Amino acid sequence: MNLPKNDLFLRAIRWEKVERTPIWLMRQAGRYMPEYRKLREKARSFKNFYKNVELSVKASLLPKKILGVDAIIIFSDILTPLESIGMKFDFIEKQGPVFENPINEPSDIDRLREFNREDVSFVGEIIKEVNTELNRELPVIGFCGAPFTLVAYMIEGRTSRDFKRAKSFMFNYPDKFKELLDKLADMLTDYINFQIESGADAIQIFDSWAGYLTPDDYKEFALPPIKKIIQNVKRDYQPIIHFTKGVAGIVDYMITSGADAYSVDWMIDLRVLKEKLNGSFAVQGNLDPTVLYADKKVIREKVLDILNKWGMESGHVFNLGHGLSPDMEEDKVKYLVDTVKELSQR
Amino acid sequence: MNLPKNDLFLRAIRWEKVERTPIWLMRQAGRYMPEYRKLREKARSFKNFYKNVELSVKASLLPKKILGVDAIIIFSDILTPLESIGMKFDFIEKQGPVFENPINEPSDIDRLREFNREDVSFVGEIIKEVNTELNRELPVIGFCGAPFTLVAYMIEGRTSRDFKRAKSFMFNYPDKFKELLDKLADMLTDYINFQIESGADAIQIFDSWAGYLTPDDYKEFALPPIKKIIQNVKRDYQPIIHFTKGVAGIVDYMITSGADAYSVDWMIDLRVLKEKLNGSFAVQGNLDPTVLYADKKVIREKVLDILNKWGMESGHVFNLGHGLSPDMEEDKVKYLVDTVKELSQR
Repeated sequence: MNLPKNDLFLRAIRWEKVERTPIWLMRQAGRYMPEYRKLREKARSFKNFYKNVELSVKASLLPKKILGVDAIIIFSDILTPLESIGMKFDFIEKQGPVFENPINEPSDIDRLREFNREDVSFVGEIIKEVNTELNRELPVIGFCGAPFTLVAYMIEGRTSRDFKRAKSFMFNYPDKFKELLDKLADMLTDYINFQIESGADAIQIFDSWAGYLTPDDYKEFALPPIKKIIQNVKRDYQPIIHFTKGVAGIVDYMITSGADAYSVDWMIDLRVLKEKLNGSFAVQGNLDPTVLYADKKVIREKVLDILNKWGMESGHVFNLGHGLSPDMEEDKVKYLVDTVKELSQR
Repeated sequence: MNLPKNDLFLRAIRWEKVERTPIWLMRQAGRYMPEYRKLREKARSFKNFYKNVELSVKASLLPKKILGVDAIIIFSDILTPLESIGMKFDFIEKQGPVFENPINEPSDIDRLREFNREDVSFVGEIIKEVNTELNRELPVIGFCGAPFTLVAYMIEGRTSRDFKRAKSFMFNYPDKFKELLDKLADMLTDYINFQIESGADAIQIFDSWAGYLTPDDYKEFALPPIKKIIQNVKRDYQPIIHFTKGVAGIVDYMITSGADAYSVDWMIDLRVLKEKLNGSFAVQGNLDPTVLYADKKVIREKVLDILNKWGMESGHVFNLGHGLSPDMEEDKVKYLVDTVKELSQR
């Protein structure tokens, strides 16, 4: 076990003693950073950006120097592994990903190819080079989308507000929908194993859209493939963090996924969640990201509030309830990181 | 007390014996109906539509004949009373409402005028004429937006995904934000009294956006003005229904608002909610609206599921967790209403 020098993040997830609360931020390498935008300009497209090892390594590392975070998540996208199974998509400015060949009916499932690690070799290289550049100073977080969220993208063909295509498929062809989720679970298990073998110290699974399901549908469809992934992944010390947005209604099911830590949005009370978890699992979150649009005085109050709710124990990784937005100010993001470090000293 | 002939809806809210579960649907008079679209074409703009008493009365009544619902909500918009206090807006195709003069800073609050019932006299006339046309066959539901949701519109100036302007104002100027909410509470109390005096049998308060707040911010900002409204409204038998989307995280606070019924989205389990309410309040909801995109077989299953969760007792009004969408099929909406009536017979 070759742990990074700063292992606060890993210790907090294991409920071991920590000197202060660790912090990293979802989308910490992002458009709000002028330095990121410079790197982005060098790539012709977003896809070329995340497939370019040199640029992605540089982007991944920016938050270390600029923000001073306690963990580096690799710069990539949750859709990355889908090309390998035959899904074709492009990122369109101001629209996000648009698929050329979305899944329209059950028979489309048969055209999906087997996942091949070689198609995402660049992800392994990014993890390795980030680790080399970090010289084991900080832990490296790998990640993937959860089966439900990825299948929803594959069926919708683009981002959606109501997921009506994905849900109609799920309602009308529940067995086929589960078959598709299961295929994704197997693919993602291999993808996560590949990231861990390449040197990832932790894995975050993003189920960004599962919170729009009824609790029953969540339990029946979104949860089982995540459980399967977590059971089958081969790992040593590496924790798995399970993120969902819209946690409050499904939390009792979500916390049975087998993950080591649950990353939650701001629409659930951290104190309530802590009682529910009763020391069994760690929590990551849960600052309302819009606090970063307010004055620094407010940021400070809200940080203190979250630290007090958790009660300065281990088991908590500070993060936002959702990712950083392009129009946020780097200066305030840095202030947030500094403030968490300052106020959470034990 | 001059109750409507079909008072299932009112009896269910009072937990009195009902022969079957009553049903009406949010946005039941809407673009999914060809007959509605014909009426809409006769008005030059959406605003002219809801200010036109004759057209609005016709729109309000469509769901009686076409769907056979158990209550008629008047056709109007939550922004209707805001013109009276000096907010100027227009409805732009595919964008929704856009304000000419949003609230940008605390001093803008001082420019707001006093609410004057005469500016919304058409709403009173619509209620009266709908009642006349109905000949007291069905109850008439009046409605308004909740203070938080309306203030969020007034500050954002348009619909939003993250409410960053409204929340920044709330974070940076909490006292001024509360002053604004309080002004709205007083205005809405008068507006609701006016609707009740005009003949509304029930009032629904729509807090469509409050679910995006942290539970603490909900308790501090969104909840108190709703409590104040409910305390101050002058009513006889008329129940108040309190709707929010994104209920799960704030439900323990929401159910202290003093309302008679809580209208909830689909991301909370009805059985859990029933236990929590313990017979004290009625519930309205909570079908996932996207079920209406699925096959009729699925609609039937999901209806039965909700009826079983509530357990065929009184205290439940069937509805969606959110409004109907323009691309839904009228035939399926009608099937939903028929199925609820059929399967909920005691």
